Amino acid sequence: MSDKFALDQKFAQFSEHWRPKVVAALNGQEIKIVKVQGTFPWHHHDNEDEFFLVWKGRFRVEFRDRVVDLGPGEGLTVPRGVEHRTAADEEAEVILFEPAATRNTGNVVDAVYTAPDGAKV
Amino acid sequence: MSDKFALDQKFAQFSEHWRPKVVAALNGQEIKIVKVQGTFPWHHHDNEDEFFLVWKGRFRVEFRDRVVDLGPGEGLTVPRGVEHRTAADEEAEVILFEPAATRNTGNVVDAVYTAPDGAKV
Repeated sequence: MSDKFALDQKFAQFSEHWRPKVVAALNGQEIKIVKVQGTFPWHHHDNEDEFFLVWKGRFRVEFRDRVVDLGPGEGLTVPRGVEHRTAADEEAEVILFEPAATRNTGNVVDAVYTAPDGAKV
Repeated sequence: MSDKFALDQKFAQFSEHWRPKVVAALNGQEIKIVKVQGTFPWHHHDNEDEFFLVWKGRFRVEFRDRVVDLGPGEGLTVPRGVEHRTAADEEAEVILFEPAATRNTGNVVDAVYTAPDGAKV
């Protein structure tokens, strides 16, 4: 049986940006947390919808035709197939809900930004 | 394409307890929000793992052999098949992540607590 966890304690255990950490796994899905700062590569996910919920700071989800600016407690779903990139001017903390083993850069493999799969914290 | 939403605005749109509202749907899963106060019936879910994340207030997940007390920003997964009930002495606001159409009372049908499926806010 799983034990409870505190988001603030989990976020305090790492400092690198753009490296999602799995904090819970259920129903073939994962709940991940990630620290972000800067601008992520454009990409899409062929088969996965992604949900972002901002925990701290401000975070942008940029589409080719619009930018969605999110603050703490604001969430957004990015449907599969939709090209997007994420960005933050200052460090932000974000919660992700998505299928297990979703590659963070989707259809793209990026030497800097593609993160190891399955990292936990 | 989905639009962003703010949890606080969503929670402000209803006041009843134990009636989850869907705020996002993705990958066959739903993100729901619920206000709770009092004690929910014992139940389990045969085929669904459930994840709880407390947004405001204090919330308990009670198992037959232990009680897990959760505050804001604390999360817990309840694996399928595990009997549990939830409780809160004062009103709390909770985020749920679980498969679409999960019945809130699981294997139990309760005249008071079983909630309509698919309610949105």
